[in-house]
Amino acid sequence: MKVTCLSGGVGGAKLARGLQDALAPGELTVVGNVADDVEVLGLYVSPDLDSILYALAGLNDEERGWGRADESWRTLESVSAWGGEDWFRLGDLDLGLHLVRSHALGRGEPLSHVTARLAREAGVESRLLPATDDRLRTTVVTPAGRFSFQEWFVARRHADEVDAVELELDRPVPAPGVIEAIEDADLIVFAPSNPYVSLGPILAVPGIRAAVSSRRARCVAVSPLIGGRAVKGPLDRMLLRMAGGTSPAHVVGCYEGLIDALVIDGADAPADAPVALIVTDTLMRDRDDGRRLAETVIEAAA
Amino acid sequence: MKVTCLSGGVGGAKLARGLQDALAPGELTVVGNVADDVEVLGLYVSPDLDSILYALAGLNDEERGWGRADESWRTLESVSAWGGEDWFRLGDLDLGLHLVRSHALGRGEPLSHVTARLAREAGVESRLLPATDDRLRTTVVTPAGRFSFQEWFVARRHADEVDAVELELDRPVPAPGVIEAIEDADLIVFAPSNPYVSLGPILAVPGIRAAVSSRRARCVAVSPLIGGRAVKGPLDRMLLRMAGGTSPAHVVGCYEGLIDALVIDGADAPADAPVALIVTDTLMRDRDDGRRLAETVIEAAA
Repeated sequence: MKVTCLSGGVGGAKLARGLQDALAPGELTVVGNVADDVEVLGLYVSPDLDSILYALAGLNDEERGWGRADESWRTLESVSAWGGEDWFRLGDLDLGLHLVRSHALGRGEPLSHVTARLAREAGVESRLLPATDDRLRTTVVTPAGRFSFQEWFVARRHADEVDAVELELDRPVPAPGVIEAIEDADLIVFAPSNPYVSLGPILAVPGIRAAVSSRRARCVAVSPLIGGRAVKGPLDRMLLRMAGGTSPAHVVGCYEGLIDALVIDGADAPADAPVALIVTDTLMRDRDDGRRLAETVIEAAA
Repeated sequence: MKVTCLSGGVGGAKLARGLQDALAPGELTVVGNVADDVEVLGLYVSPDLDSILYALAGLNDEERGWGRADESWRTLESVSAWGGEDWFRLGDLDLGLHLVRSHALGRGEPLSHVTARLAREAGVESRLLPATDDRLRTTVVTPAGRFSFQEWFVARRHADEVDAVELELDRPVPAPGVIEAIEDADLIVFAPSNPYVSLGPILAVPGIRAAVSSRRARCVAVSPLIGGRAVKGPLDRMLLRMAGGTSPAHVVGCYEGLIDALVIDGADAPADAPVALIVTDTLMRDRDDGRRLAETVIEAAA
């Protein structure tokens, strides 16, 4: 069964890992968000792709929830001591990836090509595709001003309320394989990621939304909310302010015409929604939880 | 007493530290070789400037002889695991410097400016200047072919004999302050560095050789050989092949018209030489040795 999952970072990465565990090798394609990508110290950092890659490769830190397990911070401490940019937490092991990828991108290798190569090096059998090889950046509009995503999310600790999310994009083209992966899938999955800043930018790449709209397979989304609250991050506040509420119906509203079913947590009172609601335990505490949730999603497609 | 020292990496860095210890704060200017500089993983690495900076800041590893004390290698191990370029040994702490400098250079800051800023961050009161802010690269011509300096030195472990050293240079200009530092010095010192690949490139920057030639102060060189052998590295083989011998006279021959005295080790039989020879113990095992040698050099100027 060919499954294509559109995913942001941490929560999405957990489900991606669950899907990989639940499927046969090679059946999973993950399309990752790149609109949070950021240049740090001249290095290209792709937080969502990295979270997904680390999760698929089993290198992620489950407790911290981001970055690599067994991480250390000596290079960043040295950067700090030399007066360098140190607001973005880059671990020693993590930096190895950024150095290799930035070096390759600097020589003109497309992001999708480097990503495939890195996944191969890590022994990952699933396919990981960036939504696009082109530049795509999220700008967050807040009462305090406009910020790049990472500036708002990391440097300002997403304290500002969000009035709108805008995308800086110059006709990006879907990365090679993305449209085909959506068209050929037996099941399309929207990971439990932020609809505004994680899945929104993927769907904003011309051609991707249309490919999902005209799908022949079912598309199942997993709600990123539990009891109307974000597991982590600012999504509940964003939904409340921009969509007027945090019920399953509000989540469905973010994906109008794109999904056939929404998987929600038992804590979320089933409400009227224009798509099928599937109730289960959606909190992924560990890898087993991710697999169990993935199996529920796969069953929902039947 | 204002002292200006022209220096390559490790051995030169030790003498530079000795001079700093022997002089009053702010009296020392070191002009460092940049023709060994190399791009590794897209980062700008300047091995000689770095060795000098680490020595002046007291951050160098005395036992290993290069790089930083208390170094670790986790980022490079990660680079290796991702299939990245790992022939050049970059430690975690060392990488912090390369990241900060590369980032600054990428934004257009001149090398001399970044170097001064880094020295300040490390609390170094001596002045450290690159010979030039422009591109200058050493090519080593060997029976096995032509190699960039680091390719020959690190990747090929300087196993090939050297027939000639060529410089790739496009009219480099001395970095701001270099000519003035030579003209205003009360003593010019040539560190015990390789005349072909360390001091040669500094002197090849148009204007620098002329400034030393027309000096009003004395210029004292410290021989990099002990008993006709290099303390470390390939210099003895290079001198033998390219100059016909490794006596003090052969070293003096590399600096014709530029030096007034050569400090040599007791192990080197005094020979006829066209400049004054000063005999002392030139092996620098530790910081005290470096200071003692520096004091001998300073006395030689009197």
